[in-house]
Amino acid sequence: MFERFLSKDVSNLRSSEIRDLLKLTEGKKVISLAGGLPDPTTFPVEEIRKITDDVLREKSDRALQYSTTSGITEFKKELVNLSRYRGISGINENNTFVTVGSQEALFMIFNLLVDPGDTVIVEMPTYLAALNILRARKPNFIGVHLTQNGPDLDELERKVKESISNGKKPKLMYVIPTAQNPGGTTMSLDDRKRLLEIAQKYDFLLIEDDAYGFLVFDGEAPPPLISLDKEGRVIYTSTFSKILAPGLRLGWVIAQEEFIREMELYKQNIDLHTPTLTQMIAMEAIKRGVIQNQLPLIRRVYREKRDVMLAAIEKYFPKEATWSRPVGGMFVFAWLPEKIDTVKMLEESMRRGVAYVPGSSFYHDYSGRNTMRLNFSYPTKQELEEGIKILGNTILDFLK
Amino acid sequence: MFERFLSKDVSNLRSSEIRDLLKLTEGKKVISLAGGLPDPTTFPVEEIRKITDDVLREKSDRALQYSTTSGITEFKKELVNLSRYRGISGINENNTFVTVGSQEALFMIFNLLVDPGDTVIVEMPTYLAALNILRARKPNFIGVHLTQNGPDLDELERKVKESISNGKKPKLMYVIPTAQNPGGTTMSLDDRKRLLEIAQKYDFLLIEDDAYGFLVFDGEAPPPLISLDKEGRVIYTSTFSKILAPGLRLGWVIAQEEFIREMELYKQNIDLHTPTLTQMIAMEAIKRGVIQNQLPLIRRVYREKRDVMLAAIEKYFPKEATWSRPVGGMFVFAWLPEKIDTVKMLEESMRRGVAYVPGSSFYHDYSGRNTMRLNFSYPTKQELEEGIKILGNTILDFLK
Repeated sequence: MFERFLSKDVSNLRSSEIRDLLKLTEGKKVISLAGGLPDPTTFPVEEIRKITDDVLREKSDRALQYSTTSGITEFKKELVNLSRYRGISGINENNTFVTVGSQEALFMIFNLLVDPGDTVIVEMPTYLAALNILRARKPNFIGVHLTQNGPDLDELERKVKESISNGKKPKLMYVIPTAQNPGGTTMSLDDRKRLLEIAQKYDFLLIEDDAYGFLVFDGEAPPPLISLDKEGRVIYTSTFSKILAPGLRLGWVIAQEEFIREMELYKQNIDLHTPTLTQMIAMEAIKRGVIQNQLPLIRRVYREKRDVMLAAIEKYFPKEATWSRPVGGMFVFAWLPEKIDTVKMLEESMRRGVAYVPGSSFYHDYSGRNTMRLNFSYPTKQELEEGIKILGNTILDFLK
Repeated sequence: MFERFLSKDVSNLRSSEIRDLLKLTEGKKVISLAGGLPDPTTFPVEEIRKITDDVLREKSDRALQYSTTSGITEFKKELVNLSRYRGISGINENNTFVTVGSQEALFMIFNLLVDPGDTVIVEMPTYLAALNILRARKPNFIGVHLTQNGPDLDELERKVKESISNGKKPKLMYVIPTAQNPGGTTMSLDDRKRLLEIAQKYDFLLIEDDAYGFLVFDGEAPPPLISLDKEGRVIYTSTFSKILAPGLRLGWVIAQEEFIREMELYKQNIDLHTPTLTQMIAMEAIKRGVIQNQLPLIRRVYREKRDVMLAAIEKYFPKEATWSRPVGGMFVFAWLPEKIDTVKMLEESMRRGVAYVPGSSFYHDYSGRNTMRLNFSYPTKQELEEGIKILGNTILDFLK
């Protein structure tokens, strides 16, 4: 009975292909390289238990009560402290905003900024959940392909110029400069500076998703765009899902106060505020150094798993394939010979016991039919080796 | 720099007057009858501590990990069990949906159903936060005044007929049948049946907000509309904020599966899922009977406080005033002589040491200038007595 009552906007909502996939693998013996779950052995369980008990023992009146929309002030101050580890300085608690995961941050940012018909720039491929939010806003997309070092900035500038000459001035670019999901690429410092110059020259905003900024395990992570931004043109978001625990659903935004105030008004409507208890847990986790102490372990676990996956790919994938060699994050992205359609191959792959995400899900125009995203953070090393072997053989059979 | 980039929709966002008010009282010695906070002495702190510790000891892998968008299945089954206490039967876990407070439930329901220009029916007065979400959807409002027994159903039917004859068929009515916020009214069983008949006759949906359904302290709470609904026309929402702890930010929806599936697609975009840890805490609180055992205490505390407030109003308010005598909930609503403008009186009242919410905030058309909402759940009994005394004297002075 509800269909005839639904808003006209609803038709734009599409189920996330990843989550539909996860449902298919539920309860079956399938090695899933499709998900994006952190390895639960990286959760600092004992520390979280101790912190939670202390919070409920000493501060229950606050932890169980309503709190302010933008986040607990004391927590926002700790976010300022944590941000220093990413080289972000010159901000205070009024530049930070707490959200229910970085998903809510992206939902709010795109809903606050994008009207139907607005021109937005995305990487090809890019984060599926961000694409789904954007699609619901019915924008005009400009897609910029990834090279092995992040978005192709020549292509970006060419397409921006072209769009402007067609009367479509881009409003923003959504970009994941570090350990890109799904691409696995990381922009160099020089490219970051050039991207900021392009954004300034053509006057668009940069929405920087730094979900994996703390999860770089080869060398130093380059500084985020916001730390290089002198104009306040960057809106930055990150998450506790990869550095503490995703079940807490905590993300945050750093931006100019002017934008933070708009977020506050909007979040009053969405959910009033982020849960107080989970904020206080994460706040103490920063204060007590739990996150900072845990990072070396998380990085080691993921580096080892990445190495297992890359070695297996090297061994079992056809030599015509190329793939990213991520310095951080949780994913490898593979470009297979054009003959392979990864959407069509999925059923057979799952029949043989391996799930992955077809790469076209990560393209705003559903191109990239020969690509796939492979997760290395959640499966065991044995599953990674076994899964890639099965997958490699499946690809070889499809190439025949 | 952000203003010129903002979506055109943003201009519809208005700060919640209540929250602006709360800011004014921050750090000052003002008795606040303005808020809507539960009394923290009603939080079952020790039980929550024990539960949380058990959850993190025994099920941390699940509690700290991502979970499904509609809510943890086991928790949804407990919501089905809890709903039996409200007389709701014939549902299963697929009819339930977990949200970040009932605020998110209302945000999702109204965004899924209301397009600009759609006709929606609201009570006068009604819950401010719901009004703010609706306003952002730019609907055509029909307002129905409250009597001492809930919405005036004669007025409702007359206005609905009139609207239909003007080509504006109502799509839905938002209604709080039990311990209405702010009105303090509770609909009789007969009125509930009649409302369902009217909704059926004129074919609109009923969005039932049962935030205070578990918080009726005089006699039995009448059954919610959804328990009387044979057509699946009612979408029901309630919250843990009043029966466990608001800092957990947990609410839920009960509706036909068809609508629950639409919610699932939408919530994937908004925040992926409600925090897993807080869901597991509330799940155990139902399983272990914590909520059921705590309700008699909460009801007793609030009944006593209501009695203190009503006695003080009787004593100090002018005899031309009328006010609700709520059988539950957390608020009394007062209708003062027409001469009083409660918006204009607020500054003086706060100068004298008492805050309240001007009633016009709760009217879609900002009428009800002579009304005010008074909270009795959070202040101490002494503050209630003292606050109402100051407020009564202020009113008397303004009547001179």
